[in-house]
Parts: sequence; C-alpha cells; structure tokens
Amino acid sequence: MSGPHPSTAKIRYAVRSALADLPPGSVVLVACSGGGDSMALAEAVAHEQRHASWSGGAVVVDHGLQLGSDETASRAAEWVRDLGLDPVLVERVVVSESGSGLEAAARDARHAALETVATRAGAAAVLLGHTLDDQAEQVLLGLVRGSGARSLAGMPVHAERGTRARYRLCRPLLGVTRAECRESCIAEGVPWWDDPMNEDTDFTRVRARRAVADLEADLGPGVAAALARSADQLREDADHLDALADAAATTLGTGPWDVAQLAGLPRAVRTRVWRRLLVAAGAPAGQVSARHTDACDALVADWHGQGPVHAPGDLRVLRRKGRVAVMSGSDGGGSAW
Amino acid sequence: MSGPHPSTAKIRYAVRSALADLPPGSVVLVACSGGGDSMALAEAVAHEQRHASWSGGAVVVDHGLQLGSDETASRAAEWVRDLGLDPVLVERVVVSESGSGLEAAARDARHAALETVATRAGAAAVLLGHTLDDQAEQVLLGLVRGSGARSLAGMPVHAERGTRARYRLCRPLLGVTRAECRESCIAEGVPWWDDPMNEDTDFTRVRARRAVADLEADLGPGVAAALARSADQLREDADHLDALADAAATTLGTGPWDVAQLAGLPRAVRTRVWRRLLVAAGAPAGQVSARHTDACDALVADWHGQGPVHAPGDLRVLRRKGRVAVMSGSDGGGSAW
Repeated sequence: MSGPHPSTAKIRYAVRSALADLPPGSVVLVACSGGGDSMALAEAVAHEQRHASWSGGAVVVDHGLQLGSDETASRAAEWVRDLGLDPVLVERVVVSESGSGLEAAARDARHAALETVATRAGAAAVLLGHTLDDQAEQVLLGLVRGSGARSLAGMPVHAERGTRARYRLCRPLLGVTRAECRESCIAEGVPWWDDPMNEDTDFTRVRARRAVADLEADLGPGVAAALARSADQLREDADHLDALADAAATTLGTGPWDVAQLAGLPRAVRTRVWRRLLVAAGAPAGQVSARHTDACDALVADWHGQGPVHAPGDLRVLRRKGRVAVMSGSDGGGSAW
Repeated sequence: MSGPHPSTAKIRYAVRSALADLPPGSVVLVACSGGGDSMALAEAVAHEQRHASWSGGAVVVDHGLQLGSDETASRAAEWVRDLGLDPVLVERVVVSESGSGLEAAARDARHAALETVATRAGAAAVLLGHTLDDQAEQVLLGLVRGSGARSLAGMPVHAERGTRARYRLCRPLLGVTRAECRESCIAEGVPWWDDPMNEDTDFTRVRARRAVADLEADLGPGVAAALARSADQLREDADHLDALADAAATTLGTGPWDVAQLAGLPRAVRTRVWRRLLVAAGAPAGQVSARHTDACDALVADWHGQGPVHAPGDLRVLRRKGRVAVMSGSDGGGSAW
C-alpha cells in the first residue's frame, strides 16, 4: 500500500484546486505561524509545487507579543525551509493595541505585513491556513453579534488584496478540519507548535472554539461543518444583496430623495442602501449599526412625524414634505430644501 | 407607586401593537398550553381587550401525549377563563408519529387543531406564546442544519393561515424573554405549569435550549437576543431572494432552458430557482437539499461533461448541446430534445 494519508491527500488536493488558475511562473507564499494548520498547508504547498507551474515560499510573521516570539518565528521558518519552500521570509511587526482590542490589532498588523512581503516578493497569492473549524467559529461570532448576513458569511476562499500590487488572499483549507491538519502533519512527519494563547479564554476566538465544542456536545456532531455550510450560502446571499444595494445607492446619488424612491426598494436592499448613503455622507463605516439604518428606514417605512435620526459622523437624517435627506451637522437646519 | 410590573407592561404593549390593525369586532384566540409563556400572553390579552375593539378567547390543545394531559388541559382552560377570556375551547388531537419525529407530528397536529378552532370561532387571529428564547433556539437549530437563510430566519411575527377562512397566526412575544413572561405571571398572580417534557433531552428543542445557555456562558450574555436579531435580518434577506427566485422561475417555465438563461442569474437566486424548477417538475419539496441544487447548478456553472443529476421524485437533470432540462424517469432518455 502506498500513497499519502487521506488527510494529506485532501489538503494537497485543496491546494492544487485553489491554485490551478495561477499564471505560470507565479510565486505563492504560505503565511505560516508554525501551528498545525499552517504547517500542514506548507507541507502541501511544498509537495504540490514539484508538479505545478507555480513555486512556493513562506512568510512567518513575528507579532512580538510573547517572550521568545522571535525564536518561535525562526524555528517555524527553519521548518518550512526544510520542507523545501523558498524564499522564506520572517517579518517582525509591532502590534499597538487600539480601541478594538488586541486580537483585532494583531490581525491588522499581520495583514499589513503580509501585504508588504507579498509586494516585495511579487507574490501572486498569499495562502492562509484557516480551517473549517476557524470558519465555524467566525460564523458563530457573527451570529452572536446579531449583525446580519455579511458577518455570518464567514471568510471567503479567495479575496483580492493589495493597493500597490494586486495579489490573492487564499484560504484553501476552509473545507479541512483542524484535526485533519494534525493528522497530516503526523503522517508526513511535519513538526508543529501549539500556541499557548490558543488556551487563553481572554481571547474571543478561544471562547468561540469552546462554544463550537459545546454545540457539538448539545446538538450532535457535524455542527462545525454545518456552520461552515451556512456561511457559504449566506455569503452568496450577501454578495447579491450587496450588489443590488450598490446599484441602488449609485442611482440614488447624494439626495435629498423622494420617499417613493426609497420606499420602492425591498426592505433587505433598503437597509443596505441606508448604510451606503450614510457612509457616502461621511459616517465611519465601522460605526454604522442596524440601529442607525433601522431608524433611518423608519422615516420611510414607519413615518409618524418623528424627528431627525442622529447617525455617526455628526449626521442627521430627516424627512420633510415627502423627501428625506442626510445632512451633516454643519448644514444647519437643512433649510435649503 | 402604581402601574404594572415592567415585564407585564412590555407584554401588554407587544399584544396591543400586534393587534392594533384588526378590524373592530374581531375575535382573537390565545393558543394556551398552561405554560408560563402562554399564560403571560393570556393575561395580557385579557387585560388589553378591555380597551380594545377586539375580544379575546383561548384554545387549549390537548396532545394526549402524557398521562393526565386531559386534566392539565382542563386546568389551563379554567385558568384562562378566570382571567376573563371567552370563549375558551379545549381541542383534543391525536398525534400519530410519522417519519419526521414526535415533535414535528405534535406541531402538525397542533396547527391543524388551531385551524379547525379558528375557523369554527371565526377568529381573525390566533396568538402563539413563542418568546425571544424560542426564536433563538429555532435559529440555532437552523444554523446547525446548515440549510441556508430561510431556515435561519426563524419564526415571523405574523403569518397568514387558513384554507377555508383566512386568519393571522401571530407571535407577539418574539421580543420578550421567557424570564420576563414568568416575572409577569408572578407579578400578576397568574398560575402556570412547567411541562416536564421541557427537561427531556430526547427532544431537539430541549437540547437547543441548553445549547443557547452554553453559548451565553461561553460568549457572554445577550446571545439569545442577538440570535433573534440575526433572524430578523435574515428573514428580510430570504423574503427578497425568494421573491426574485419566484419571478425568475415563472419566467423560465418548464424548460428545457438555454444554459445562458440560467447562467445570467446571480448564484444566490439560481440555487433557489433550481429548487423551484425541481419541485415544479414533481420533486417532493421536503426532500430537495442543497446537495441536489448544487449538483444541478454545476451543470451550468461548473460544466465539464458530467452525467445527469439524480434528484428526488425520480427526476434527472441533464445538459445537452448548450441546454439543460429536468426529466422525469418516465421520459426515457429525454431524446426529444
């Protein structure tokens, strides 16, 4: 009997499929932490590049958040070099915690570093080791935020990135479980490192992991796979509804708008249009919530003479004589219309 | 200090709002099990009817699933009569377990009984005591089935029902928690009964209840409210995408169809259209899964010469010379096109 372990075969196939359409001569970089998921991914990339028209390297981001993180990064770099990846780059970042928490700050710093390295190496794709379990956790976190289809839609397999040079952010392992990654590492004799931060329940992500495990215990196995499947379907829904809202917002322009123009849109599109109209008028995108878009929408759909809606970015949304408008605070009373 | 307990006030307000647009002289019936949720609802209906143009009665369904269920039903009927509801009807049903399990069979029997009673009493609305917690559990169950926005969308506040006479199935308490219902019962001195079946983890619903509690423990309070909020948003999305799919399926007719006709639809609409085309061709709606619609869709979106797709109802879906068709088994090879 020969051939790789089924989990290894599955991971290699996922990598092969995800990269099948790259132009010949492309460079792909595995973003590797030294953990079991990204090491299994690195093994698959190293194996597949032998028969592919692309070549694989890696980037290890040292977040500098733990004592000895530089050694951990060097060791991970050595491991992936041993697998045959080249170039292997170590990028040190400085994570400065902002208002949105340490996890968000680390993620932002990591993505900035990946962009820098991808540009420098002329990479066509950066591969991330997110698994089906990560996807399930992402969906669950979106769900308990109660923030609609887009945040439930989880992570896409492919996303275009890069401001200077374009590259593809690619997650080939979204259909592969964490357990399969570890099985593959063991079968192929690939070393990995278990980050102790993955046990620290101060982190939302770690609590989400525990929550998925509890759901499996309560409701039976297969919960993680079902959550990931839900994400796929909701992502398609969100893509189409967002496209409809983009088109409608473009048609609407800057307003004021006749109430009938907005009332004619289906509610699922209209709440998304409100978000776009507010952001176009200067509201910070991250601060616009369903509470704001619902209040705006009530001016159209549930009008009973209510006063202006206050929205982030010092905006006021008001209805007068069958028309609605978004005014910035400096517009005074909006007496011009 | 006077005035009702805040939870009582909240429940009464929810009832008042939900029924504000009923024609004068309408009869509404509370579907009452004698449990805390429906007893709190019955109290609010009994209170509100004094100032309303509608009048409130109740229906108690005896499922006959437990020894002494007839006594439980009589006692619940007496409780709501004491609150001032009239008429109060007890309807005995026979639950025969079908393939889809005892819970589904009991629900089907209950809804059939409610329809019978609503028709007999000439009711404009039947009120159900489903709470925010029930909604959260419903969403979670949909999520772990991985079956798309519609099943995540939970229960609507209003639904039109009735084949002979039309009536409204109404859930005024979807924004009220189970705890608030019990608080209201205690504050108003309203008795209720805790069904021991609510502790029996043989029932999916009971396991879902435990799962929501575990999520709150893992991820913080407010999970149930967030799940219910997600449901509201996803219901709007599903409503619009379903409407788009209805329109597209009507335009497409019975086929065969040019591949380009289908390929021009966005994927979120197309998978819903496939479901409609299969059901229109005779597939039992309950048996068509994402697996079937995905395989059909691959004939359009991922064509590589694959064979026919087998679908429920002895259907085959095939592509030939740039066209796709749904054939029933008796159509032979579909040689007509």
